[in-house]
Amino acid sequence: FQTPEGETYWRLGDPRSLRRVMVRKYRGQVLVDIREYYRDAKTGEELPGRKGISLTMKQFRSLQTLLPDIEVALQQVSRND
Amino acid sequence: FQTPEGETYWRLGDPRSLRRVMVRKYRGQVLVDIREYYRDAKTGEELPGRKGISLTMKQFRSLQTLLPDIEVALQQVSRND
Repeated sequence: FQTPEGETYWRLGDPRSLRRVMVRKYRGQVLVDIREYYRDAKTGEELPGRKGISLTMKQFRSLQTLLPDIEVALQQVSRND
Repeated sequence: FQTPEGETYWRLGDPRSLRRVMVRKYRGQVLVDIREYYRDAKTGEELPGRKGISLTMKQFRSLQTLLPDIEVALQQVSRND
């Protein structure tokens, strides 16, 4: 998807999800924003909410590098059922 | 790293970063929490801050699937310098 501002985003989880990953540029810095939107009751427009975090490229790369470790932790936590 | 509560976490970006990815279980649901911590002025302890989001497994899997698309968007945004 593209926002009117030319940012690219995707919905997380399912096609109607209000949680988005967005790639955007803010003050010259490329950011990966993971954020929950909410639907404005009056306009029906989706607006960015309080819950979320903007990762810098460095932090996003770090997250990518950690994926195999995160996977191991997920398996462990899931096993402890 | 392990928290005293047995949650596993990693620091994002650099070893002193206050931003963490954490795998934890909350009310029987496995969550991947990406959150900014802050240092308590009195105790020096790191505490979870307002900025952040807890992804469900489904949302985290969705994020993983989107990584190649995110990569393309990052290249595009970075080129527009």
